[in-house]
Amino acid sequence: MEFKKDQKLLFIGDSITDCDRAKPEGEGLFGALGNGYVSFVNAFLTSTYSELGIRVVNKGISGNKVRDLKERWQEDVIDQQPDWLSIMIGINDVWRQYDVPFIKDKHVYIDEYEETLRNLVEKTKPMVEGLVLMTPYYLESNKEDRMRQTMDQYGSVVKKIAEETDCIFIDTQAVFHNVLEKIYPAALAWDRVHPNDAGHLLLARAFLNKVGFDWNKE
Amino acid sequence: MEFKKDQKLLFIGDSITDCDRAKPEGEGLFGALGNGYVSFVNAFLTSTYSELGIRVVNKGISGNKVRDLKERWQEDVIDQQPDWLSIMIGINDVWRQYDVPFIKDKHVYIDEYEETLRNLVEKTKPMVEGLVLMTPYYLESNKEDRMRQTMDQYGSVVKKIAEETDCIFIDTQAVFHNVLEKIYPAALAWDRVHPNDAGHLLLARAFLNKVGFDWNKE
Amino acid sequence: MEFKKDQKLLFIGDSITDCDRAKPEGEGLFGALGNGYVSFVNAFLTSTYSELGIRVVNKGISGNKVRDLKERWQEDVIDQQPDWLSIMIGINDVWRQYDVPFIKDKHVYIDEYEETLRNLVEKTKPMVEGLVLMTPYYLESNKEDRMRQTMDQYGSVVKKIAEETDCIFIDTQAVFHNVLEKIYPAALAWDRVHPNDAGHLLLARAFLNKVGFDWNKE
Amino acid sequence: MEFKKDQKLLFIGDSITDCDRAKPEGEGLFGALGNGYVSFVNAFLTSTYSELGIRVVNKGISGNKVRDLKERWQEDVIDQQPDWLSIMIGINDVWRQYDVPFIKDKHVYIDEYEETLRNLVEKTKPMVEGLVLMTPYYLESNKEDRMRQTMDQYGSVVKKIAEETDCIFIDTQAVFHNVLEKIYPAALAWDRVHPNDAGHLLLARAFLNKVGFDWNKE
Amino acid sequence: MEFKKDQKLLFIGDSITDCDRAKPEGEGLFGALGNGYVSFVNAFLTSTYSELGIRVVNKGISGNKVRDLKERWQEDVIDQQPDWLSIMIGINDVWRQYDVPFIKDKHVYIDEYEETLRNLVEKTKPMVEGLVLMTPYYLESNKEDRMRQTMDQYGSVVKKIAEETDCIFIDTQAVFHNVLEKIYPAALAWDRVHPNDAGHLLLARAFLNKVGFDWNKE
Amino acid sequence: MEFKKDQKLLFIGDSITDCDRAKPEGEGLFGALGNGYVSFVNAFLTSTYSELGIRVVNKGISGNKVRDLKERWQEDVIDQQPDWLSIMIGINDVWRQYDVPFIKDKHVYIDEYEETLRNLVEKTKPMVEGLVLMTPYYLESNKEDRMRQTMDQYGSVVKKIAEETDCIFIDTQAVFHNVLEKIYPAALAWDRVHPNDAGHLLLARAFLNKVGFDWNKE
Amino acid sequence: MEFKKDQKLLFIGDSITDCDRAKPEGEGLFGALGNGYVSFVNAFLTSTYSELGIRVVNKGISGNKVRDLKERWQEDVIDQQPDWLSIMIGINDVWRQYDVPFIKDKHVYIDEYEETLRNLVEKTKPMVEGLVLMTPYYLESNKEDRMRQTMDQYGSVVKKIAEETDCIFIDTQAVFHNVLEKIYPAALAWDRVHPNDAGHLLLARAFLNKVGFDWNKE
Amino acid sequence: MEFKKDQKLLFIGDSITDCDRAKPEGEGLFGALGNGYVSFVNAFLTSTYSELGIRVVNKGISGNKVRDLKERWQEDVIDQQPDWLSIMIGINDVWRQYDVPFIKDKHVYIDEYEETLRNLVEKTKPMVEGLVLMTPYYLESNKEDRMRQTMDQYGSVVKKIAEETDCIFIDTQAVFHNVLEKIYPAALAWDRVHPNDAGHLLLARAFLNKVGFDWNKE
Repeated sequence: MEFKKDQKLLFIGDSITDCDRAKPEGEGLFGALGNGYVSFVNAFLTSTYSELGIRVVNKGISGNKVRDLKERWQEDVIDQQPDWLSIMIGINDVWRQYDVPFIKDKHVYIDEYEETLRNLVEKTKPMVEGLVLMTPYYLESNKEDRMRQTMDQYGSVVKKIAEETDCIFIDTQAVFHNVLEKIYPAALAWDRVHPNDAGHLLLARAFLNKVGFDWNKE
Repeated sequence: MEFKKDQKLLFIGDSITDCDRAKPEGEGLFGALGNGYVSFVNAFLTSTYSELGIRVVNKGISGNKVRDLKERWQEDVIDQQPDWLSIMIGINDVWRQYDVPFIKDKHVYIDEYEETLRNLVEKTKPMVEGLVLMTPYYLESNKEDRMRQTMDQYGSVVKKIAEETDCIFIDTQAVFHNVLEKIYPAALAWDRVHPNDAGHLLLARAFLNKVGFDWNKE
Repeated sequence: MEFKKDQKLLFIGDSITDCDRAKPEGEGLFGALGNGYVSFVNAFLTSTYSELGIRVVNKGISGNKVRDLKERWQEDVIDQQPDWLSIMIGINDVWRQYDVPFIKDKHVYIDEYEETLRNLVEKTKPMVEGLVLMTPYYLESNKEDRMRQTMDQYGSVVKKIAEETDCIFIDTQAVFHNVLEKIYPAALAWDRVHPNDAGHLLLARAFLNKVGFDWNKE
Repeated sequence: MEFKKDQKLLFIGDSITDCDRAKPEGEGLFGALGNGYVSFVNAFLTSTYSELGIRVVNKGISGNKVRDLKERWQEDVIDQQPDWLSIMIGINDVWRQYDVPFIKDKHVYIDEYEETLRNLVEKTKPMVEGLVLMTPYYLESNKEDRMRQTMDQYGSVVKKIAEETDCIFIDTQAVFHNVLEKIYPAALAWDRVHPNDAGHLLLARAFLNKVGFDWNKE
Repeated sequence: MEFKKDQKLLFIGDSITDCDRAKPEGEGLFGALGNGYVSFVNAFLTSTYSELGIRVVNKGISGNKVRDLKERWQEDVIDQQPDWLSIMIGINDVWRQYDVPFIKDKHVYIDEYEETLRNLVEKTKPMVEGLVLMTPYYLESNKEDRMRQTMDQYGSVVKKIAEETDCIFIDTQAVFHNVLEKIYPAALAWDRVHPNDAGHLLLARAFLNKVGFDWNKE
Repeated sequence: MEFKKDQKLLFIGDSITDCDRAKPEGEGLFGALGNGYVSFVNAFLTSTYSELGIRVVNKGISGNKVRDLKERWQEDVIDQQPDWLSIMIGINDVWRQYDVPFIKDKHVYIDEYEETLRNLVEKTKPMVEGLVLMTPYYLESNKEDRMRQTMDQYGSVVKKIAEETDCIFIDTQAVFHNVLEKIYPAALAWDRVHPNDAGHLLLARAFLNKVGFDWNKE
Repeated sequence: MEFKKDQKLLFIGDSITDCDRAKPEGEGLFGALGNGYVSFVNAFLTSTYSELGIRVVNKGISGNKVRDLKERWQEDVIDQQPDWLSIMIGINDVWRQYDVPFIKDKHVYIDEYEETLRNLVEKTKPMVEGLVLMTPYYLESNKEDRMRQTMDQYGSVVKKIAEETDCIFIDTQAVFHNVLEKIYPAALAWDRVHPNDAGHLLLARAFLNKVGFDWNKE
Repeated sequence: MEFKKDQKLLFIGDSITDCDRAKPEGEGLFGALGNGYVSFVNAFLTSTYSELGIRVVNKGISGNKVRDLKERWQEDVIDQQPDWLSIMIGINDVWRQYDVPFIKDKHVYIDEYEETLRNLVEKTKPMVEGLVLMTPYYLESNKEDRMRQTMDQYGSVVKKIAEETDCIFIDTQAVFHNVLEKIYPAALAWDRVHPNDAGHLLLARAFLNKVGFDWNKE
């Protein structure tokens, strides 16, 4: 297990991370962590590694693009002084190019995406003990699909940054792709983006596997 | 123009037809026709052919499959004594096979679909002056997509029945496919099924073109 | 078709334009353009001329008079840098003279109306590629009706300004008058002002006809 | 004053009478009489003739036509055993011919109207001490207006029945016409049918004048 | 009739005046004048003296005491430039002494009441054409009741000020006392303060009688 | 203390008893006993005599008159098989005579009141171990007040029945009269009927004093 | 893995099972399985064993005791024809003895509990392929606590029945007890009964472990 | 009775004090004192000692810890100039250590608690006539329970401060412990903290006993 006693683990991202979390705190009682993968990660850590006392904080905000993270980075990440940071961003950067194709100032193209994300990672890496980079994803199994293609390119950027900056890398698209070969996207998400519990548990397990969670520990 | 003075035109179908219409009437003041293609068809007829006094009735119900139409056919179609009838059904018959794949009694497979629809059409055709059959559709441009493939098969069934029973046939999938070559599905529908105004106007225009609407008439 | 690739088309006006659009943006997903003629214009453009990528923005605000447009012109029109601008204003300028006759400071009489509108048009014309002026209207077929008479005078002012400044002119009152000879106003609008889908589609078609929309294009 | 001690005065009609009265009772505390002319009649009687103890009951139902009154006449009129009865019906009988012109089974044409109303009056007259017939009205001052013309014909029917059956007759259209020469309809009613307090007080005063209310009594 | 063409008549007071009026305007469409005596005064003036075009404004605020009127006098009275002003205040000044007897800083005792009210009246009288002073009241017929006694003392102050400053004086307590001899307070007001329509019409008629309203005018 | 281990104590009455209790049970968790004197009686018993395990049930229904109790007596009293029964009824029997004076069939006059109440008491007395009769009351200190006079007469009836049938008698009017000499009714109840916590605690203490509650017991 | 292709797995129980599931279906889209352990079991099965197509149905109802299960057993279990059945009941049977101690008919004592549960199990066992019995639990680590003691006795009954009828047995109390040694109950459940995500995931994992779920399968 | 005529008694604390009181005033009509022990203290004082005219003010705020009281002390206590002050704080200071054990900056440990509370008491004592200190409590009868142990330590701190500063001391934990020997915590509070009416009446009686309330006074 990567995490040490009393460490703070902060998640930042878009609606997949947000999931109706308490704002602005992002932690506390009564579903303050939302109802997505962040809450599930916390639930597994609390029940199985309660002796470590890992403090999980959720700073996801629905609709965010990497451009939005940049604006609130100081307040929502740096000022929080996390020991561990996990970033999953990019879905909206891509999606807006396809659902509001004519409103171009809502699009974040790949160059801006890469530069902004790298900048945030490089600046924050030295301040934390560990940094996890999760790719954006699209619940579409057809790799020739236009939006899936773009999403894969953004995912490649995340991978490249993770390798160059020595972050833990999670290929969420690969996690889902594996499942989509067996069940159709509509069974996981109404809009091919916002998954049900099954999808969020997949994300949580992928995260936990990467940080050394032991499924046999009681 | 196919319609004659004082005729009643009844639409039946699923949520695409329903669109929050007034229940149970399906006609009247204040958005009683819902906010989809049925209301648009009525709006074009009212403003351009008001001298005909065509009475439009909407009997769509969200979530319906052909099996549901069969159960309410007497009350919602026969008893209404329409002069013209338009049917668009099948999306949910297919969709449930993909979004709740394990709940098999919610699936209507193609044999039941064909038999039920043909039965309803054959029984009703002699009672009306004209009958329009609109295919179900899926806002996915990849013809290899599993759900799109199934939807195309159901569309073929509709076409076959229309030809055999001499109904007016509208290939809504073809209408959308044409547009999807230019814009991505997400710009037309959040879930690849329920379209925005652009999609509903496409359906309305396709319908009106088939019944002889003259776009130059004032 | 007047519009060129990637142009921005902005509509400004009162409740007929507003129709519950998203505020303050006036564009985006999920009915952001409201449910009136602006959304319909956008829907026709998106489905038929999607290759042009016309960006439609709705800046209508319910209850506005020309005096209100003047106050928010910089922010809602100039700062938006539209390529095309469409203005429909004047209904409330007239209506308040009849529904709150004793509250005179809510009335905008014809001299102020003309001066203000001309001023806005003259100042903005050079900044845009095209400017459309739509008259206000009243869904009353009796030309001797007091309020209809006043509305017609305001409509004449719009026509005069359009001619003098070389704008595209749309006589919405004439569009409706034509229909009101066949159906009674109560079938189009509960209050003789806010039309149903039929009325809004009439406005949208009148607009599209003036900007060269080809109804036979697929 | 026509009314005698402890008598019950019952009003029946459509939305003009209803005005959000308590259902089904139509009497009691806390605005049970609605907020229209019935409540005002009661308020004048209670404050000025409280020694008479007149019990006012409101049985108006929004949207009712004479056809609807007929169906609920036994329960809502006969069973109530009123000493005085006031009827105002017909607005919807006419209005539906103009706002939903193509839905003909919602229209009550003048023959059915006359026969039904006369039947109800003749049958009930012997059971009550007095019966008041109020005409339907339309807040349109142009007598050539199509709907106004129709409404005037229905009003004439009411007058004829009142004369033949010796009922108290109130020409509400005349009451309003007088005022509409001075102010425009929009200042009295948003939709030319449902008046504001000014219109309802006109109806209440017209009623009270006909039953001998003394405005100088304290 | 005291009022002249195009004059503005402003009412100020507490909840009896307020009655859910539109805030902050206090005038306009759709019940902007609330549902109490102010709306009734306006309704009688609009329907009977519409040729005068009297503009009625309601600036009542629930819970106000004379101390509150003083604070908003500049904005809500002086800045409004009324031609006629009507003041009814004092009920809460007295009531709080009886319903929250221990919270003394919510009480306005008679000396402060008299001084504040006289000050407002003397300062405003020269700016208006006429000023109406209505007493506060309590719907209790027992003159020995403690709260009624206090209310009567406040009413006497109003009378004294009216006489000294030559204002029109309305003894609302006397108006109600007359009726309370015939019916019990509970039939007029749930809490002996906020009357039903009957009570508000009594206030409106008392007001109109004092300003020369002709009940026989049509 | 009158109550013995495991006994059931049932309260029946009008809104004073009801106080928003859970319906239909009238017992259970989460405020099921309402927020009035019944809940307070239960709270004192639970905290001070928990070893007795007294089960308190609330069967009050707002607006009830003795006539209503009669109709539901079998179901809400007899079938419940209480060991102790407490009845407080009569406020609405009297109040309706004063707040809706003209709707005489809502009045329960004193003869019907006495006969009905005596009948219920005589029939039930043999089935219970003890029966408490609480008078109705009116928060008016003026004994000459018309409604207070009537209420006192109904209270006398309760006293007479209690004496004749050997029930425990509680003169709630006397309890309140004592307090009203010191504070005005408006400080206890907005409408002189529904008291605040102070009033309900007075009722609860009066009840507990009569059944032998020891205030010094811990 | 115990489950075979296309089998139906039905859960029945109280609020821990219910968790706001869709009623009455207990399966379908959009959170139909609620947000507790049932949904988590389904999510793990769907994502990891989607090739099996296990259909999960949730028939939990908040507040249920074993007595309630008995009443709806035919409809909610037998008629559903599950292949696998999981029962968790007893918390409310015990809890009511402690939170409403005086309302004894809401208590289900241990004899009735054992007899009823055994009866249901014995009758249903032959109809299913497998039956899982989960004990009730109480999130209290003090084994001397009165309610914990009672709950442990009910848990022993479940164990005994499971052994005698050869059902799969899950000791949920033991699962929680293990965790409660490390964290205080308040961190898992507000009321020591209804757990947060951490608690529900513990239940889900305990269940999955018993039916052969392979945590290393992808 | 400790309190003298016209004195102001202010309560400050957390949710137990707050109980949905009116904010920000904390006094007035219509449940402004909330529905807990503060309202009950006021009710007993109002009904039994109304001649004293004690003014009760509630400044409790849900979730507050002693750290929060310190921040609002000037505004909510000093500026209010109470004659008597009652403080009950500490439950959340302790609870957060157990329900969000990993969020340490939400914990107020015992040293900060003691120092802050002593500071507030010492500073305020000279300004008031009397100061009441109520301990925090936990509705758990097992003195070995971890959270109960901590709560008892905080209670000891309150006792020590009360003795050293000569305040009236109320051991609420002892009050409840006494009752918990007879009934289980779940019958008093859903979460072992927020009591029902029985619990709040226990607190109110404990308070009143300490300030000399005479239960036999009428």
